[in-house]
Amino acid sequence: MWVAKPTAAPRCTPGIAVDADIVIVVFSKVTVPTTLQTRDGEMTLRYSELGDIDTILQLLADDPVSALRGDTARPEDRPAYEKAFHAIATTPANALLVVVAPSGDVVATMQLTAIPGMARRGSHRLQVEAVRVAASQRSAGIGGAMMRWVIETAAPALGASLIQLTSDEARTDAHRFYTKLGFEASHIGFKYTIKL
Amino acid sequence: MWVAKPTAAPRCTPGIAVDADIVIVVFSKVTVPTTLQTRDGEMTLRYSELGDIDTILQLLADDPVSALRGDTARPEDRPAYEKAFHAIATTPANALLVVVAPSGDVVATMQLTAIPGMARRGSHRLQVEAVRVAASQRSAGIGGAMMRWVIETAAPALGASLIQLTSDEARTDAHRFYTKLGFEASHIGFKYTIKL
Repeated sequence: MWVAKPTAAPRCTPGIAVDADIVIVVFSKVTVPTTLQTRDGEMTLRYSELGDIDTILQLLADDPVSALRGDTARPEDRPAYEKAFHAIATTPANALLVVVAPSGDVVATMQLTAIPGMARRGSHRLQVEAVRVAASQRSAGIGGAMMRWVIETAAPALGASLIQLTSDEARTDAHRFYTKLGFEASHIGFKYTIKL
Repeated sequence: MWVAKPTAAPRCTPGIAVDADIVIVVFSKVTVPTTLQTRDGEMTLRYSELGDIDTILQLLADDPVSALRGDTARPEDRPAYEKAFHAIATTPANALLVVVAPSGDVVATMQLTAIPGMARRGSHRLQVEAVRVAASQRSAGIGGAMMRWVIETAAPALGASLIQLTSDEARTDAHRFYTKLGFEASHIGFKYTIKL
């Protein structure tokens, strides 16, 4: 995380020492920031910074499926989201990314997690979570540019032989999107919600 | 990883320094080894050790879906699996677990990955991968005991509010198994295979 801007945000949560060499052990192989070509011009893909939290919350809330799950960007949830931001930053092999439009606005986000594994002859998987593009930008091809970067650049750089994600049954537009990109709808995604 | 037996296997791969405090930052909250109650008596759930690799490979290969993907436990693939074992050990928030029968035999395995996230009000997810039970043991309720431990013990200890896994469309027995345990088949699992 924060390879490009090491001083942009704290690298550790209180009480947890994080060695920078560990944090970047996987994602240092991926060149970020980078440029994405979209129908609205060149955009920048970079690691998220603490100052992006409010925009990321808006992106998460501006989605009917996520809103049903409680992602409503309420001010009282802000501490929980800040804690989550730090947890992602201090958990190696995780990266929270944002896309910045020419205007300077953050218009999209996604999270990547590299998962080493024994299956498939000891191959790494690259998991994609929480892909969101601002509603106002959805005709610009930003999501496609992000996913093509994951497929063509990030996964090979990380040595991942499989990219995986799950999409809620209700997101039929997303299913067409991922299928068009070459993903196979080969699995069922099971979820178990814990009452904490 | 290896909280119980810190000297059982090397904690790092050459060239990558791994701080023990980092490696156990998440899974130190989970008490392992522990005892699972099965119809074949009490079994031990523990972190995998280097000496378990051959058995884990046999468990992965003894499965028609995995075998189709190349998990055939061939001797020439052994170095790739050893490298993968070390990658799991040195990637924090990952744990490779095995179940040991009263005979001392390793009869099941699974991998857990804790994934911090911004979605769902900044909640952690606990991802389950590569669940395998030896064919000779499939009537003993071992898989159920493993998953109940994940649901009732591991996920709450890790502060995870969601457990997730994907299951190949072809594994209809597994789908009944997960549904019976309380998982919801709410998502589609998309996979993209990279030609490395």
